[in-house]
Parts: sequence; structure tokens; C-alpha cells
Amino acid sequence: MKLSVKLIDITQRGVLLNKLDAREIGVMDGDRVQVINQAKGKSVTGVVNTTTTIIEKGTVGVFAQTNSRLEFAAGESAEVREAERPVSLDYVKKKMNGEKLTKDEVFEIVKDVVEDTLSSSEITAYISATYINGMDMEEVEHLTKAMVDTGESLKFTTHPIVDKHSIGGVPGNKISLLVVPIVAAAGLKIPKTSSRAITGAGGTADLMEVIASVEFSAQEVQEMTMKVGGTIVWGGATNIAPADDRFITVQYPFKLDARGQMLASVMAKKVAVGADLVVIDIPVGRGTKVPDINEGRKLAREFMEMGERLDMRVECALTYGESPVGRAIGPKLEVREALAVLEGATIPNSLIQKSLSIAGILLEMSGKAAMNAGYEAAEKILRNGKALEKMHQIIETQGGDPKVKSEEIVPGEHQFVVNAPQSGYVIELNNQALITIAREAGAPHDRGAGIYIHAKKGMKVNRGEPIFTIYAERGWRLQRAIETGRRLMPMLVEGMLIDRVPKVHWA
Amino acid sequence: MKLSVKLIDITQRGVLLNKLDAREIGVMDGDRVQVINQAKGKSVTGVVNTTTTIIEKGTVGVFAQTNSRLEFAAGESAEVREAERPVSLDYVKKKMNGEKLTKDEVFEIVKDVVEDTLSSSEITAYISATYINGMDMEEVEHLTKAMVDTGESLKFTTHPIVDKHSIGGVPGNKISLLVVPIVAAAGLKIPKTSSRAITGAGGTADLMEVIASVEFSAQEVQEMTMKVGGTIVWGGATNIAPADDRFITVQYPFKLDARGQMLASVMAKKVAVGADLVVIDIPVGRGTKVPDINEGRKLAREFMEMGERLDMRVECALTYGESPVGRAIGPKLEVREALAVLEGATIPNSLIQKSLSIAGILLEMSGKAAMNAGYEAAEKILRNGKALEKMHQIIETQGGDPKVKSEEIVPGEHQFVVNAPQSGYVIELNNQALITIAREAGAPHDRGAGIYIHAKKGMKVNRGEPIFTIYAERGWRLQRAIETGRRLMPMLVEGMLIDRVPKVHWA
Repeated sequence: MKLSVKLIDITQRGVLLNKLDAREIGVMDGDRVQVINQAKGKSVTGVVNTTTTIIEKGTVGVFAQTNSRLEFAAGESAEVREAERPVSLDYVKKKMNGEKLTKDEVFEIVKDVVEDTLSSSEITAYISATYINGMDMEEVEHLTKAMVDTGESLKFTTHPIVDKHSIGGVPGNKISLLVVPIVAAAGLKIPKTSSRAITGAGGTADLMEVIASVEFSAQEVQEMTMKVGGTIVWGGATNIAPADDRFITVQYPFKLDARGQMLASVMAKKVAVGADLVVIDIPVGRGTKVPDINEGRKLAREFMEMGERLDMRVECALTYGESPVGRAIGPKLEVREALAVLEGATIPNSLIQKSLSIAGILLEMSGKAAMNAGYEAAEKILRNGKALEKMHQIIETQGGDPKVKSEEIVPGEHQFVVNAPQSGYVIELNNQALITIAREAGAPHDRGAGIYIHAKKGMKVNRGEPIFTIYAERGWRLQRAIETGRRLMPMLVEGMLIDRVPKVHWA
Repeated sequence: MKLSVKLIDITQRGVLLNKLDAREIGVMDGDRVQVINQAKGKSVTGVVNTTTTIIEKGTVGVFAQTNSRLEFAAGESAEVREAERPVSLDYVKKKMNGEKLTKDEVFEIVKDVVEDTLSSSEITAYISATYINGMDMEEVEHLTKAMVDTGESLKFTTHPIVDKHSIGGVPGNKISLLVVPIVAAAGLKIPKTSSRAITGAGGTADLMEVIASVEFSAQEVQEMTMKVGGTIVWGGATNIAPADDRFITVQYPFKLDARGQMLASVMAKKVAVGADLVVIDIPVGRGTKVPDINEGRKLAREFMEMGERLDMRVECALTYGESPVGRAIGPKLEVREALAVLEGATIPNSLIQKSLSIAGILLEMSGKAAMNAGYEAAEKILRNGKALEKMHQIIETQGGDPKVKSEEIVPGEHQFVVNAPQSGYVIELNNQALITIAREAGAPHDRGAGIYIHAKKGMKVNRGEPIFTIYAERGWRLQRAIETGRRLMPMLVEGMLIDRVPKVHWA
């Protein structure tokens, strides 16, 4: 059926049909149609929504994300036909029934995810099934390869290509801002793609965006890497393993962390950028994604097995994850802290040591440093200013100001200092509470929002000394963050009252 | 934040915000906002979609199904606030993790389903989790009660109220059109609510709509039942157990048949109409939802246990399900066949015997007939014209023409007769293939589309004699159904070639 196109700019996939046309075509809500842009030679299978008013008979509404592939202009003519029920739905059901999927079946699902043939609900069913029934290593390998094959890949002619990945869950984990320039300064190529925060207070891409652009195509990432040795960009813009975004989105409401999915997600991005040598940072401990150290070792073995299956050398670093890395949480605060270290600051220890350890492993793996000499080699590059110089080059290549200095990065003007209610040692920092407060304060969207920790775990504080400061760009957000802080108590000082009824003033 | 309302008539739930407003409120796609219609005192928590163009800053788009609860007129002012993440998401995750949910947790999920607080994806995750991890009888009981409590209920002052339910899967199963008038003619009250076809060729509601209205409120169903003893209406319009519609919708793409869900779905509707005595028709055999007889017995025990838990007497009838019930498939064809039986036709046997058996059980359970005398009692009511008279009353009460005669119901004018390719016995009828062909021909939307079977299983046919006819309202649909028929071969005659390469003409 020929229908006139109406563009619908909603962050959704699919098409919108008038009920009369839908009946004529023979489809109901949830069924699929094939939509063809004959002029451009494009065709998409989209999920149908129906309406009786906003799309009149003879018109087809095309949602924004579907039209990004169809490239219709408003008013153009679309050919719309009933589409077959995708066979991938049978494979999803097979997985729900506890069976293992073959390589071809997994590929079919991932292809239909990427091509928007499956709806969010259907993708959720797949994720739920893999989460509940699990995947063995072979199935994870299939998934990884399918995610790679359905997106862009970088093709480097020089080797080795190195990469790192932190599996996340720890606030303030800004180490890529140090690791990338250090290893690039050592002459290695590290085309690092990062995520934006979904449930966190700032992903590496959110951080880097404070000082440079982060949205580049895969081709641009490759060129920039060849030019200056490294990038720090947002993976979402590269169309590398695009299925991953969809998988992550459907896990978001449940804060699901489906193990097999996570393995595939990480490995697919590493395969797609052409990495030969990879180090995976696995934060362990209470409040992280891996509370138990044995669980962390098991996960490390799985990453390494996946590396073997995918022809990639993988090493894992189990890192301390019960406290934030460094003292800053939130985009501007974190960038300020990382730049200051590149500029020569000798604190915070936790950030510097972790970054040098991870960078050191990559230097050792690549032969740039002897075994057990990677840390010192990385430290040298940091201390002699080479890492800062490289970071300036990377910033410049990504369209930022290479002369940017840490002190020029100013966090939100609305601030609230929390003081120690009594003297004692800081006995606990609650990762999740800190993240929640930073988000309430506006992070990551408000780049200047976040938390700066004055006293870390194990430090002695005197009554009335500041233990942390909340920053916000807007007053009402600060108020909300303060209220949340009162409720969540993100830091405890030894002997400190956790609650008191009736309430007294906080700090 | 105060926003001006724009109504968006899309068969969806939730609200649409301009990205700038969303950021100001502090929500992303997939988060939730509370939308308040202060003038009407209505408040709804809705899932957020964002856009940059079709909803301008200062405006909130409200999708049709959400506005049916908010009752905004276009341009009115809405208060929109960030809403807490619903706790029901944690319960869904708990179920995904294989744990059993408490009564309160199940209620919270179902409430959020009915109130559109959960998105389709989130409901899918719940259904997937109950499907994969299963539910024990206690959890099914909780789910049943929650589904009842979140919708309308009928409150009869006279008893017993009787009801029947067929779990479906067998084409042509039009027995409610006979059972309801028979038991109502016996003086019983049977407020029957039925479904529309989702994957079938015609639900009972689709059938009844050929001769009467089927959309009534719960209150109207109660009044009509008190007046004439029975109804045959569409459950979807009554707001009885409204969660069920959402659960069924998300199962549709996968043709899922989650056992616990199905038990709860059936029982909730029976509890909500106030049924005291219920018979469940469980078709068994190849091509049905219950291929194995022992599986059927197990399901029957589960229905009976649920009956005990819910203070309702339940009996189950395991029925032959490998062939269609009667000879007609598709709304008009089925209504014509059922009316003809009420008018005195003595075929088809399978339809008459099954209807009388089910009606007979209800007559025995209610004491209207002695044990083992129910079938004959039902037969008497059918044969003496009381059932026809009662059906006319029901049709009239539901706004149809009580004088309607079977021969006045004319199926689609486009017809294709399939003849036996050789002489022999009909050895197989494939339920799913018959349904698929009927749907391709236009059923259930095109009321006149469907299939009429001339030779049922076990019957002898001579070469060239008709074995079935396909009916359609539109020529192109008939063509499509014919092509599908060639591919699927829904009926086999002993010794008949199933396929031949290269292809020869069909029949």
C-alpha cells in the first residue's frame, strides 16, 4: 500500500498507522510491516502502532529512529506491506524454554535488534531469558561476534592495538583519562570508546565531553588514533556494536547485570576496535557489581577465556572497589582531578596508583616495559609530562582546547559542605549512596554537579571538619541532594549516630 | 512543573516530554513522571518518552490510553513531576532471580500494570520471569486475587452463578453460543465474558459481534444477566481483570502460553463475575495447547485446586482437540453453524456433542439435572427450542436482531473450493494450518472470512469431491489464503502426496 510519510520525532522505533490502513494491510498493534523508500532504495521492517486520529488514512507515521534508516522527508511516498513474523521471536522463545541457541540463531536475534525489527518488549524478553537461563561461553562467543558483525569495525594495519575496560559500578573511576594518554605517550595505539552514565554519576564519555567533543564516527576514531595514538570518545556515536545500546537500555529499569550479556558487551567493543591486548578492570567488594573476590576471579577467567576464543590477549585486574576512586564524583570535578594529576598533582593516591597499575599492565603486555616494570614505566611517563602532552594532543584532535588547565574547570556554584558530626575515623563510604546524591545534585547532565570527598575511608577527622561537599548547578537540585544525603548517610565516622528519632539537624 | 497538555492518540501509554523539560524535571527516556490533572483530581504515573520537535518546551504529550485515566482536554494545564522508581521493578527482578513473590509484592506489580506505571517492556520481563521460573499454586492464587482486585467485579445476590471457559487453541470452538443459551434456558445465571481472537481465527466475542453488540460495562453485564439469564460479551470492555489484557498482549509476539499466567487469567475472570460453579474445557491432543492427556489431567487438577483456594467449585472437561469443533472456522461461518444447531440442525456432531456435554456438566453441578443426566437435560433444552428462544432474548438484550436466522448470515463472496486429489480417508486436519489459512483469508477482522470443512477426519472422500472451502471478503485475501493453503496442506487424504518437486497444481 502506498502511504504518504509523516515524520514523528519521538525517541522510538516503528511506524504509526491509521487503524483503517492497518486493517487493510492486515496487521495489528505489535505486528510488523515492511516500509520501503523506493527513491532511496531503503527498506526497514518496523513494529506497528495504530491510531485513529493523529495519523489519517493514507498516511504512515515514521518514528525518528526508524526514519534515520529510511531517510524519508515528510510527505514522501512509502510502500508499506505486511511483514512476516520474524523467526528471531522463535529463537527468543527457545531461549526462554531453557535451550541453548546456535550461532545462526543468536545472529538472527542480534540482527533484528539492530534493524529495529524487534520491539523493546521483545528485546526485554531475550535479555530476561539469557539472564535467567544463563549462557555458556560458546553462546557468549556467538553473541559477541554477532554484536561485532552487526556494527562498524576499525581496521588497523599496525599492531598491537591495546584497550582497557572497567566493568563499572565504582564512583569516580576516571582512570581512562590517565591510562589513555600514558599508554599513547608510550607509543601504543588505544582507540578507547566509552559509555555515558546510565545509572552512574558520569561515564568516561560524559567526563571527556567537559573538555572535548566525544561524538565521532568509527572512521574518525581510527584516523584520530593513527594520528595521536589514542581517543576518548563516546561509543554510542561510532555505531560500534550498536546492539549493545539496545540491550543496556532494556536492562536499565531493573538495574540488571546479566553476566553473559556483560561479557559479550565488553568483548564485542574490544573486537570491533581491533584490540589485540586488553586489560579488564574488575572492581570488587561490597557495593560493586562483584561483591565477592572469588566471583571476581571467576569473572576474570571468563574474560580471559573469551579473549582466547576471540584471538585477543586479555588480562584482568581485580581492583579495590568499596570506595570511590579518587575524591571527585561528577563530570567536571572528575576531569579537574584527573587533569591535575596529569599536571603533576601527587594526590589522590587511589586514582594515581590504580591508573598506573592498569597502564603498566598494558605496557608490559605490549613489551613496552619488562615484566613487573610496567608501573614504574607508566609513572615515569606521567611524571615527565609526556602523558599531559599526549592528553593535550588528544583533546585538540577531538576539537577541544589543548591549553585547558585543571583549575579552569569550575564545578557548580551551589555548594553544601558536610562536616563531621564528631571526631573519629571514617569507617565507611557507601558507593551507591554517593552516586545517588551526585545524581540528585544533577550529575551527569549538569556537568558541574557532583561530590568532592575530603576525608576518605580510614582517615581521621575532627568534629566540625568537612568530610564532603556537594556541588550543583542549580539551587533546587542542591536542596534535593542535601535531603537525599540526610536520608542515605553516604559516609560514616566511627561512633557516629546513624539515625536519631526525632530527627536532629544533619551535620 | 506546569505544562500545557497535547493529546496524542497513539495506542500507547505514557507521556511525551520535550528533552529540555525532561532534563529540567530530571528524567530520561524510560523514567517515570507523575502527571496531575488538578481540576479533575486525577493523577497518573507514566513512563517518559522524549522528543525535540513534536512536543515543544512547555508542553506535555499524553498518550491516549494514559489520558483515558487523566481526562485532560487539549491545552489544559498539567502538573508534571519526577516520580520515584516503582518498587514493583524490584519485585520483578526478584522473580527473575528465581525467588517466590509474596501476596503484597504480586499485588504491587499488578497494580502498577493496571495503572500503566510499568512499561510494556517491564511487563514483558515479569511475564518472562514467571514463564521461565514458574509459579507455585500460592503465587498463582495471589496473582488471581490481585487481578480481580484491580478491576471491576459483578455482585450477584442470587446464586449459583455458573460459568464456563475453554482454554483455547482449537479452531471452530464456538460452543459458548450453544452452552450459554442452554444453561440460561434451564434457569441458571451465566454472565459469560469472552475474548477476541488474538492468534485464532475468531474468539467468541468476535463471533457474537456478528449478531449483537458485545461491548458492555460490568454493570450492564450484571443487569443483562439478571434479566435474561446470560450474556455473551467481550471481556475487554468490562474492565474485569484488566491486567489480563496487558499480560496477553506481551505474550502475543512469542505465542507464549505461560501456565501460571493462564491459570490466573482464567480464574480471575471467573472470580470477578462472581461464579460459584465453573466448568473448564481443556482441549487435548496434537496441535492444541495441551498435547498430552496426562498434562491435561495435571492442568485439570491445578484448576480444581485453584477453585478450592478461591471458594469456587470447578470441574474440568478434557475434550478432543486434534480437529476443529464442527465444520466452520471464522466468525460468520461459525455463527451460522451454531445458530443452525439452535434452529434444529442435527449436524455437526462434534459441535453438538461437545456443547451438550459442557452444558450438561453445569446442569449437574447446579442440581438442575441429576448426576449423569445432564447431557440429556441439555439436549432436551436444545431440541425443544428453549435454547433458541433464550438465544434470541440474549441477542435482543445485547442490541441485536432477535429474529436473525442462520441462513441470513452470509460468508464472504470470494470462495475457493479445494477438492480431494485422490480417493481415500481424511487422515489429518492440521489445526494450526487451518487457523493460519483462515487468518490469511481475513478472519477474524473480515467477519465473512474463514474455512468450511466438507470432509472431517476419518471420512471417506472420492477424488474430485470438495474437502474444504476457503471464504474471503476480498479477492486478494482469498488469493493469499490459497497460496498459504498450497504451502501448509491443512488436510491430508490417505495416500496423498504431501509435496512434489517440481510443484504441480494444488488439488
